[in-house]
Amino acid sequence: MKLKVKDLDIATGGSKVVLLNQEDADKLDLHHMDRIRLIKGKRTCTAVLDIAESRKAMPKGKIGLFEEVLDSLKAKQDQTVTIKLAKKPKSIQYIRKKLDGKKLSKKEIQQIIHDIVKDELTSIELTTYIIANYTNGMSSREILDLTKVMTQTGTIMKFEQKPIADLHSIGGVPGNRITMIIVPILVAAGLKIPKTSTRAITSPSGTADTMELLTNVTHQPNKLKEILKKAGGFIVWGGAVDLAPADDKIIKVESPLSIDAEGQMLASIMSKKASVGAKYLLLEIPLGPKVKTRAQANKIAKHFRTLAKNLKIKIKIIITDGSQPIGNGIGPALEARDCLWLLQNHPKTPKDLKEKSLRMSGQMLEYMRKTTKGYETAKKILETGKALETMHKIIKAQGGTIKTPEQIIIGNHTFDVTAKKTGKIKQISNSAISKIARVAGAPKDTGAGIYLFKHVGDRIKKGETIYTIHAENKIELEYGIETAKSLNWGIKIGN
Amino acid sequence: MKLKVKDLDIATGGSKVVLLNQEDADKLDLHHMDRIRLIKGKRTCTAVLDIAESRKAMPKGKIGLFEEVLDSLKAKQDQTVTIKLAKKPKSIQYIRKKLDGKKLSKKEIQQIIHDIVKDELTSIELTTYIIANYTNGMSSREILDLTKVMTQTGTIMKFEQKPIADLHSIGGVPGNRITMIIVPILVAAGLKIPKTSTRAITSPSGTADTMELLTNVTHQPNKLKEILKKAGGFIVWGGAVDLAPADDKIIKVESPLSIDAEGQMLASIMSKKASVGAKYLLLEIPLGPKVKTRAQANKIAKHFRTLAKNLKIKIKIIITDGSQPIGNGIGPALEARDCLWLLQNHPKTPKDLKEKSLRMSGQMLEYMRKTTKGYETAKKILETGKALETMHKIIKAQGGTIKTPEQIIIGNHTFDVTAKKTGKIKQISNSAISKIARVAGAPKDTGAGIYLFKHVGDRIKKGETIYTIHAENKIELEYGIETAKSLNWGIKIGN
Repeated sequence: MKLKVKDLDIATGGSKVVLLNQEDADKLDLHHMDRIRLIKGKRTCTAVLDIAESRKAMPKGKIGLFEEVLDSLKAKQDQTVTIKLAKKPKSIQYIRKKLDGKKLSKKEIQQIIHDIVKDELTSIELTTYIIANYTNGMSSREILDLTKVMTQTGTIMKFEQKPIADLHSIGGVPGNRITMIIVPILVAAGLKIPKTSTRAITSPSGTADTMELLTNVTHQPNKLKEILKKAGGFIVWGGAVDLAPADDKIIKVESPLSIDAEGQMLASIMSKKASVGAKYLLLEIPLGPKVKTRAQANKIAKHFRTLAKNLKIKIKIIITDGSQPIGNGIGPALEARDCLWLLQNHPKTPKDLKEKSLRMSGQMLEYMRKTTKGYETAKKILETGKALETMHKIIKAQGGTIKTPEQIIIGNHTFDVTAKKTGKIKQISNSAISKIARVAGAPKDTGAGIYLFKHVGDRIKKGETIYTIHAENKIELEYGIETAKSLNWGIKIGN
Repeated sequence: MKLKVKDLDIATGGSKVVLLNQEDADKLDLHHMDRIRLIKGKRTCTAVLDIAESRKAMPKGKIGLFEEVLDSLKAKQDQTVTIKLAKKPKSIQYIRKKLDGKKLSKKEIQQIIHDIVKDELTSIELTTYIIANYTNGMSSREILDLTKVMTQTGTIMKFEQKPIADLHSIGGVPGNRITMIIVPILVAAGLKIPKTSTRAITSPSGTADTMELLTNVTHQPNKLKEILKKAGGFIVWGGAVDLAPADDKIIKVESPLSIDAEGQMLASIMSKKASVGAKYLLLEIPLGPKVKTRAQANKIAKHFRTLAKNLKIKIKIIITDGSQPIGNGIGPALEARDCLWLLQNHPKTPKDLKEKSLRMSGQMLEYMRKTTKGYETAKKILETGKALETMHKIIKAQGGTIKTPEQIIIGNHTFDVTAKKTGKIKQISNSAISKIARVAGAPKDTGAGIYLFKHVGDRIKKGETIYTIHAENKIELEYGIETAKSLNWGIKIGN
């Protein structure tokens, strides 16, 4: 059947969808969610059918194309396309199989991930796969296969230098910029670290956002080889490298229901480490934001160890206290300044971030048998300025110029949140601090965020400043203050 | 924040969705799939946010509204709406609970069904609920609560007449129009049957489609009371009565992956029986198309009995042979003609449909203690013309005029499928026969379909006609022939 194109001028942001009127669909015995094959000249593409039922239905003889289909066919308004019934993607039957509690083979998982990456699945089908994995669980073998498949579908980088090490935190702790301290310490100690980081999705800053205040974080894989050779390590935005293309699409389904499918998380993290050829991995599991109990953390750690062993990656896992923000600055610029102060051994160094970074670096060095006195070695590297020197090398290799902490521009619309009574800080809420920093403008306004003067356990006097909210303009500052107020300032003070 | 409306001129066919550009979304810290509240004058509505990422993004300061949102706000192009962040519907947390393997209370199920009916859930959330129910299963108590909730969210009809009985078939067998024979027999025997039937979704005809050839099947609940009083029964289209509004939305998710969630099916069927106040139910489980084994049928029967008992409905379950089509005609007009011939005791009566209807009617009469000789009683009602007389009463009460079988218009573009060899019919494929009838035009072309001259077990000579394909025009006939050929004519002949 031949139909005329109607350009719908909207993207679905995912699967390829076309729109037909009821009568045309009936004529071809086509139903909602059927797959149809579109042909225009030499170009073909498969899309999912939606049927217009509204009063402003598609006219007869026309087919509405969303952006993804227009692009794929290079089709324009009023051009003619031919449509045919297409078969469902093979992965549908494997999703059904998983749904019925059976285990999937590597080949089946491969097909599913392939179809996810190619946007061949509808949101109903993709959701079904993710939920079936979540409720029916995945075996260790399935998780291993998924990890390998996710590695294969993305960019694979091979570095000649040795030993290639990597680090990762399960996340959820605001201000926790350990990567920007640990990487220079470990690289100074002789490790090679090709670190890809994320940007913030729901947090006030990701490591990539913070690092971007100091240098360029967007690089192509070939350029990264050069940088690693020059500086022994890098800290870049993983999104530009495309290590695990299925990931973003899966997260889109998981996030509205806050689903943390363990097997999926394991595969997603480890596939990226395998993609950069890491032989050693330092993994942080913060207790608090995502992983609630030590028992849960131990269980996850066990699964990581099994998977890492199968991937021939040596893993050092550290369970940390994630109950409050780490460091003083929260937000890209405030965090970047903290990191530079710390690497400079400046009096304004955030002590908690320093201690944590030294402890974790030290444990990694001992694990890799570089030394028996890890903490001391790390401390020496940091305090003699070697870590700063290495960081400068990395910044330059990534195309940046060296800045002093004072050159980093912080939002100058500020509001001090002060103590209503004298006492001791009992709690600083991770989620409240994140939310306040975000509505004040972070991460898009890089200078926006929060600067903490106190941490849990510190004594405070009535009227003393607990933290300052920074924004880049008056409106967002006020929005930040309003939000902070509605969240009881995110602070509890006891006696 | 105030934004100008852009009329997107497309319906989602379900949930309310709006489109913002990335920058406007960032300003409000809004993400893909967040819920926002829209205000225009005194009208408000909650919608799910989609973020335009394409090259043809939404302009800044504009908000794209899909039809459902435009309707709900009575908004027009370039009018101004105010938006605010809205809370997620309560049911999200209950869906999460079910996802984690916990049981839901009646109140929680009620909230979920309410939000489904009101289109408050995204397709990801709705799919998650359905898949979680499928993989984690539902307890008998949950199924009972779901049934009650689905009854309450739809139309409830109260009839004064007694005893109210109903019948249902799990379906999947082409031509299986037992309802149109059993209803007049049982009504003639003194039962009151308010039968609501479906239209075809993926089959060549539903009971409502076939009945529509004889009379009007679309009636409001009040009119139905009048019809039942007058004729003692009716056979109408359930869609017009809206007994279970959540049903269609749930089926939309289940059908692309052919998910038959047992708990959902039980609740869906039984809620409609409870809605019409049925005290007795005759249920057919055909072995073959949907339920494959006798063990599976027995298990489903057990669950139906438990649920029926809790709803105080007396149930008679009959497991039948569903391995081939029933009756000779397949398609609305061909089936309607078969039914009239049968009720007239015409020589062209399809014997299998007659036998099956008599047996089932008889068993129901014995179950209800109307007689100890059910089959004989039913046969007498049929062969003395009482059933036809009752059917005529029903047809008239529903607003139709009496037709002879010969007055029903059958598609006059025909093709005879003949035997390639002499032998015995070994198999007639339900799915192939359905598909051929559909592409030949059924159910939209009411005269289209298939007329079977032979059934499984019948002997046939080379060159003899096995079945005729009927269509209303040449193009569809050819399409039907082509499809039949590609399916090996849907027939196996052995020795």
